Amino acid sequence: LWFNNPVKAKLDEQCLEKSNDRPVVAGVSGGADSLCLLGLLLDAGYPVIVAHLNHQLRPEAASELDHVRRIAERTGVPFVGESIAVAEIAEDEGLSIEEAARKCRYRFLFQVARQRNAQCVAVAHTADDQVETVLMHLVRGAGLSGIKGISPRTMLAEFDPQIPLVRPLLHLWRSDTETYCHEHELDFVLDSSNTDQAYFRNRLRHDLIPYLETYNPQFKKALLRTSRSLQDDHSLLMASVDDAWVRSLAEYGDGYFTFNKHRLETYPSGLLRHLFRRAFFSLRPGLRDVDFDLLELAVRFTLDEDDFRKTSATRRLDLTGGIFLYREQDLLYVAGYEADLPMGGWPQVAETIPVEIGDNELGHGWRLIIEEIDGEGLEEKSQANDDPLVAWMDASKVKDLSIRPPHPGDRIKPLGMNGQSAKVSDLFVNLKIPSRARKQWPVVFSGNEIAWVMGLRVAHPFRLDSSTRHALRLTLKRLP
Amino acid sequence: LWFNNPVKAKLDEQCLEKSNDRPVVAGVSGGADSLCLLGLLLDAGYPVIVAHLNHQLRPEAASELDHVRRIAERTGVPFVGESIAVAEIAEDEGLSIEEAARKCRYRFLFQVARQRNAQCVAVAHTADDQVETVLMHLVRGAGLSGIKGISPRTMLAEFDPQIPLVRPLLHLWRSDTETYCHEHELDFVLDSSNTDQAYFRNRLRHDLIPYLETYNPQFKKALLRTSRSLQDDHSLLMASVDDAWVRSLAEYGDGYFTFNKHRLETYPSGLLRHLFRRAFFSLRPGLRDVDFDLLELAVRFTLDEDDFRKTSATRRLDLTGGIFLYREQDLLYVAGYEADLPMGGWPQVAETIPVEIGDNELGHGWRLIIEEIDGEGLEEKSQANDDPLVAWMDASKVKDLSIRPPHPGDRIKPLGMNGQSAKVSDLFVNLKIPSRARKQWPVVFSGNEIAWVMGLRVAHPFRLDSSTRHALRLTLKRLP
Repeated sequence: LWFNNPVKAKLDEQCLEKSNDRPVVAGVSGGADSLCLLGLLLDAGYPVIVAHLNHQLRPEAASELDHVRRIAERTGVPFVGESIAVAEIAEDEGLSIEEAARKCRYRFLFQVARQRNAQCVAVAHTADDQVETVLMHLVRGAGLSGIKGISPRTMLAEFDPQIPLVRPLLHLWRSDTETYCHEHELDFVLDSSNTDQAYFRNRLRHDLIPYLETYNPQFKKALLRTSRSLQDDHSLLMASVDDAWVRSLAEYGDGYFTFNKHRLETYPSGLLRHLFRRAFFSLRPGLRDVDFDLLELAVRFTLDEDDFRKTSATRRLDLTGGIFLYREQDLLYVAGYEADLPMGGWPQVAETIPVEIGDNELGHGWRLIIEEIDGEGLEEKSQANDDPLVAWMDASKVKDLSIRPPHPGDRIKPLGMNGQSAKVSDLFVNLKIPSRARKQWPVVFSGNEIAWVMGLRVAHPFRLDSSTRHALRLTLKRLP
Repeated sequence: LWFNNPVKAKLDEQCLEKSNDRPVVAGVSGGADSLCLLGLLLDAGYPVIVAHLNHQLRPEAASELDHVRRIAERTGVPFVGESIAVAEIAEDEGLSIEEAARKCRYRFLFQVARQRNAQCVAVAHTADDQVETVLMHLVRGAGLSGIKGISPRTMLAEFDPQIPLVRPLLHLWRSDTETYCHEHELDFVLDSSNTDQAYFRNRLRHDLIPYLETYNPQFKKALLRTSRSLQDDHSLLMASVDDAWVRSLAEYGDGYFTFNKHRLETYPSGLLRHLFRRAFFSLRPGLRDVDFDLLELAVRFTLDEDDFRKTSATRRLDLTGGIFLYREQDLLYVAGYEADLPMGGWPQVAETIPVEIGDNELGHGWRLIIEEIDGEGLEEKSQANDDPLVAWMDASKVKDLSIRPPHPGDRIKPLGMNGQSAKVSDLFVNLKIPSRARKQWPVVFSGNEIAWVMGLRVAHPFRLDSSTRHALRLTLKRLP
């Protein structure tokens, strides 16, 4: 079994760059699997750093750290050990013990890897771990990404954006690693951990798997093969997702992605689910609760399906982890709540800007051109205007023009409503202006009275009548 | 539950062409699921034909046929019943009872569908059947195509190339169909079948699933959702396979596909497995034993991997069901043993063809041009020739030129071997001529002696020497 070092072949093949002198950080708990990993890495000639985290969850943990340290010393390998009160972290961060342990462990391993300029972090997951993982996902319910199991090489963006995590023992069974330790007289420890998650795993390992083996004595091998085949399928699928992503992404920035909604609508919903999954994990690398229902919700929102059709006024869908979707014309934003979304087609002003006859700059490429127009028949001309970006006003009725965002309670007397007034905020709602665009919507004031809610409504008091011989024409423009 | 007929929605959505007047053939065993299917199809306004096959496997089978016939009569629906001794078919065709039953059933249903010009065959598989199918594949070992479960709409090319099989109840649980029958006072029969396969299913249903529900009370729903999600993923994947297929297929004909091998080599092996799976099922629609190992073998053969690299002389790989792969230069054939493979770049002759000075037609676009060339320095000219499709001969040494395929035992004295003779068959082996091209390989004879194994070796006895003043130049050509 050990004549051809199986780790070397695997590492050379899929895990690491070849002829690389940077060290490998090996996570060594002291169990048979991780001691076997250490032995095989050394045997294969890799420079190794042994890293061990004491989770402080079991009384024997401290002596296990010493045990691993001694093994490292004996083999002349650098050792980094650390102790963390995982139970406290779990309480502080509102995580389960198992989640907190995982987080602390990988945080520690990648920290060591960065400090030592390592080429990768290697962990000792075996074929048994793979079978248990796949089975756990199957029992609890998951899609392809879950039931394909863990990968021989993966990036954990939440812990490090560049250093890969490799699992060179995925093709070896736990019993193989024990045989290795016996043959090499490596004294391994037995993990007596009993956290909830571990308990679930233990039930799978000791009850469910033996039971399934009464149906198929080769069950574990069969499931491992299924997993391997699904990993390949998943990679193929991800290539399609890459392609769809590139074709539909319109823009992106800090904390958001903007997709072309029409393009998304041409994709099958299975593809959209993968696209959203990728967007969510790009925004929140550590996100844990992205399930089928959540992705399906995002898809139905995007396609205006079912319940969303009835409530299309709701342009925003809040999801997990502070992520929300936002529809705007032909765009779909996938964003974190902290994102500073671009305002796309909407003019925006942050403060009061005095404006004059001529060319006024409003920022972000927007300009307001104010022209004086004198003569006869101006009322008809103003009534013929149907461009929402153009407003006519009787020059004799306006004074001290300025632009500022609306204040709460601001009212306008819209043209055509016989001088009745309406709240600007109601106007926004009725005209379906995105709420995020309302706060800084540009409003033209004559003194303290609203003359034009730009692009939406001109005010009644400043209208032209048959006696008007002197008018102002205001034109809102955006330079490309 | 029944207010919005769930079958109508499903059928309208994914199973049938809309506003279609052609009938639906419903497979009705008499169980709750199939009576529910019948009721819902009628309720939805579809023209239905009830089809029932008596498998003659259980004593009560005949009375069940009568039972279903009476229900059809009562509801005024056409009924087609048939009896087949499935056990005998199983024995005759070397199938398990379950396989034979499935084969007979679908054969019967699609036969009825063709006779009645039906738009589809509808069967009553429920969500429970789906969960059991997925689980069965998982326990026995399968890839995505298996563990995605059965599809709401599928083509069974082995039974009919055009009429789809639809499963409109896949989203209803078995208990739902029983509720439906109770509410509509439909008297359903209980299947007491106990074939091996059914026994395995029964164990899953009565032992494994309840056991898994102790891990997750929502297990069945979770697995159903997994299946739905995998179906979508599988469809996406199949779109990639379509694309890869089109890009790599060089030629196809009765019983074979020819792929561009270089193109195949650029594909990931996961994609190749799907490509081969598709090719195999296209050649043998009923093929049942295409597993991961078989596909992987085909992939390794294609990529010259591992064991195949060592035995690259073996250009042929025989697989299951009379299917074989064949490598030839930059082509890979996937073929059934009965296929008449195209000879690609190889000239072939079926019988003796006398040839003369001038232009001789050999068939399939191949021609042999024979020119007389007189003068000095002909020996040098002949020795300078390095075109394998051109042969020089001393005109005074040849007589009665003809071309025929080699006979077993035919020998040639190749030029440059000082008159020693060699078997033509050995020549083929040494020069790696595909065995399928050897049988009709064109050989030029002068009388009864071989003068040229075309394209391969000219014979020593007919060589030019310094005294030659009168030569023949033979040129093999293929017109595009």
